[in-house]
Amino acid sequence: MYISGIGRTKFGVLSKSLVELAYESMFNAINDSPLNISDIDAIFVSNFLGGPLNSQLHLNSVIASLLPGLNIPIVRVETACASSSVALNQAIYSLSKFSNVMVVGVEKMNGTHLISTTDAISMASDNELDSKNGLIFPAAYALIAQQYMNKYGVSHETLEQISYLNHKNANLNPLAHFYHKEVSLQTIRDSPVVATPFNLFDCSPISDGAVSVIVSNKRMSDRDVRILSSEISTDCISLTQREDLTSFKATKIAAKKAYENSGIGPKDIDVLEVHDCFTINELIALEDLGICNPGKAFELVETGDLTLKGSVPTNIDGGLKANGHPIGATGLAQIFEVATQLRQEAGKRQIESPEIGLTHNIGGVGGTTGVTIMGA
Amino acid sequence: MYISGIGRTKFGVLSKSLVELAYESMFNAINDSPLNISDIDAIFVSNFLGGPLNSQLHLNSVIASLLPGLNIPIVRVETACASSSVALNQAIYSLSKFSNVMVVGVEKMNGTHLISTTDAISMASDNELDSKNGLIFPAAYALIAQQYMNKYGVSHETLEQISYLNHKNANLNPLAHFYHKEVSLQTIRDSPVVATPFNLFDCSPISDGAVSVIVSNKRMSDRDVRILSSEISTDCISLTQREDLTSFKATKIAAKKAYENSGIGPKDIDVLEVHDCFTINELIALEDLGICNPGKAFELVETGDLTLKGSVPTNIDGGLKANGHPIGATGLAQIFEVATQLRQEAGKRQIESPEIGLTHNIGGVGGTTGVTIMGA
Repeated sequence: MYISGIGRTKFGVLSKSLVELAYESMFNAINDSPLNISDIDAIFVSNFLGGPLNSQLHLNSVIASLLPGLNIPIVRVETACASSSVALNQAIYSLSKFSNVMVVGVEKMNGTHLISTTDAISMASDNELDSKNGLIFPAAYALIAQQYMNKYGVSHETLEQISYLNHKNANLNPLAHFYHKEVSLQTIRDSPVVATPFNLFDCSPISDGAVSVIVSNKRMSDRDVRILSSEISTDCISLTQREDLTSFKATKIAAKKAYENSGIGPKDIDVLEVHDCFTINELIALEDLGICNPGKAFELVETGDLTLKGSVPTNIDGGLKANGHPIGATGLAQIFEVATQLRQEAGKRQIESPEIGLTHNIGGVGGTTGVTIMGA
Repeated sequence: MYISGIGRTKFGVLSKSLVELAYESMFNAINDSPLNISDIDAIFVSNFLGGPLNSQLHLNSVIASLLPGLNIPIVRVETACASSSVALNQAIYSLSKFSNVMVVGVEKMNGTHLISTTDAISMASDNELDSKNGLIFPAAYALIAQQYMNKYGVSHETLEQISYLNHKNANLNPLAHFYHKEVSLQTIRDSPVVATPFNLFDCSPISDGAVSVIVSNKRMSDRDVRILSSEISTDCISLTQREDLTSFKATKIAAKKAYENSGIGPKDIDVLEVHDCFTINELIALEDLGICNPGKAFELVETGDLTLKGSVPTNIDGGLKANGHPIGATGLAQIFEVATQLRQEAGKRQIESPEIGLTHNIGGVGGTTGVTIMGA
């Protein structure tokens, strides 16, 4: 199957509503593709916090209101921060019945007041075991970081370099949350502590934004990108139930299946988008995806292999850290970037002739993972 | 494809948690089927209000915690009150890839306190146009009822008879919310006004409960029931955007497709489950599904055709009114009842030799509809 259209909004603290953001990305995806909206057979809507933050559930019917008279199947999928790669996965299943389907990822996190954003995000944790007891997400990932850094002898300097690199990449991405924000290593190092070992620049921001992607079962134009594999996996939700905090089993399983189904191996990946909700996660992702051995990802940071001109260009759009993390849209933002790179339309941040790309999208502390492999 | 296992909990005001309810129904479905849990390739979780009422999103990963080591794809689907028929529809798409999948519908509405249940349910409406302005669900359906009753000259007595019949049916269903609650026509007539023309007995209750269904791409046992068609459709979410309030376009479209795909017509239906969230909806459903002509459903009430021994036995489990309405489980409760009837395992409420059944499940005021046709 093929990605035949992509569209997104700018990410950031935006004045647009949840519905306006969704509409803008859908409009852009249709404009990008050779298709009309009437060619779309079904829509999969990804959104995480519409209920708690926007008092809006049943978002599929809100999207139906934007398309009067179509009355097509529209579905909402929610799996925390992995919502949009899971929605894409569902869309792909549906191509057994349909020809062209759209996946819409959207999140409106700023300027809403029903409950606090931190409390809302905590709904991705086990309420009984974790969030009710105060284990908010920065603290949960800080526990993971402490275990990882102790086990492999990695210092906070490595995390600072990851943050620095992602901000540098975002400066080449006009749609990124932190486009044109110069961030020095000193600023990163001196930023306020959030949860040891994390300071502010280890944490991805609270972003508004939307991304839409059209998936077709036939090639629609020369700009189409092939989806070679889409796999999702789950794991227990609470850290209290995990054997190992320095690796995510759901990622390993989803990646193994995606590699097997596509015949692609980690060495074949030319462009990579990983879920750096916190800097530590970029290291763990590189290892769980088999890009390097366990405990060795810091070497890729030090050698420059993750940069635009390196051997494994990673998070070239700025990643969750600096492109932004509008949760229900994040997995599709990764798809958007890899598709743009494979089409060789990434402008100043274009990688040289990439053939294969991979996206890695996590929900909660690894409770859900989606891995997608694409080819030019 | 086939329904190879069904399981549910009692519906009502229950002391069990969201997760405990889900687990009980999953356990019962596995016990009912010839399969083991390790035969399940993927799970589709339907839940509407986990975020606003239970502070629990990312429910797919909570379900993964109940099944340690499986790490299979698990997805959460939400489309308001139609969530579970839409989840079933998604599960059916996935059979292009999988052999056996489970659909779990669950809702825990009582004993939670984050926000009021009425405010939470209102999230199924358009927040900007309707719910923010105070149009709660009983009021929205009361507008529909007023239009319908004026147009067709139907009185509240007809609605009372629907309520009475559904309560009478529930008295034959030990798992119903209102099992063993004798309700007289006088009690129904004298109950307090909620929103004219509705009084308390026109409204379905606030129920806790869960239902699980296993769907297989091959026949697993003699007790399997065939799924002949599953179709979903959407419409604009707000009543302000509708041309006609006395009929739901999404139902008509989903039903038309389901009839076409299965080769079954309205006259072939031996057992019917319709979405009577408010009594008026039972009349509208019968008409939108083509069981009778517009404005004529009251005749089916008067003739007794909807009863256990009538020509179109409807809501024999008690319907949403008296079996209960645990929102994320409601569509699957309808599937459970029709499967039980087609297997001829319904005990005291068994219909004589039904061959074909249909379920009709609505989200919001008709923003989403799922129609499923099954055969013995």
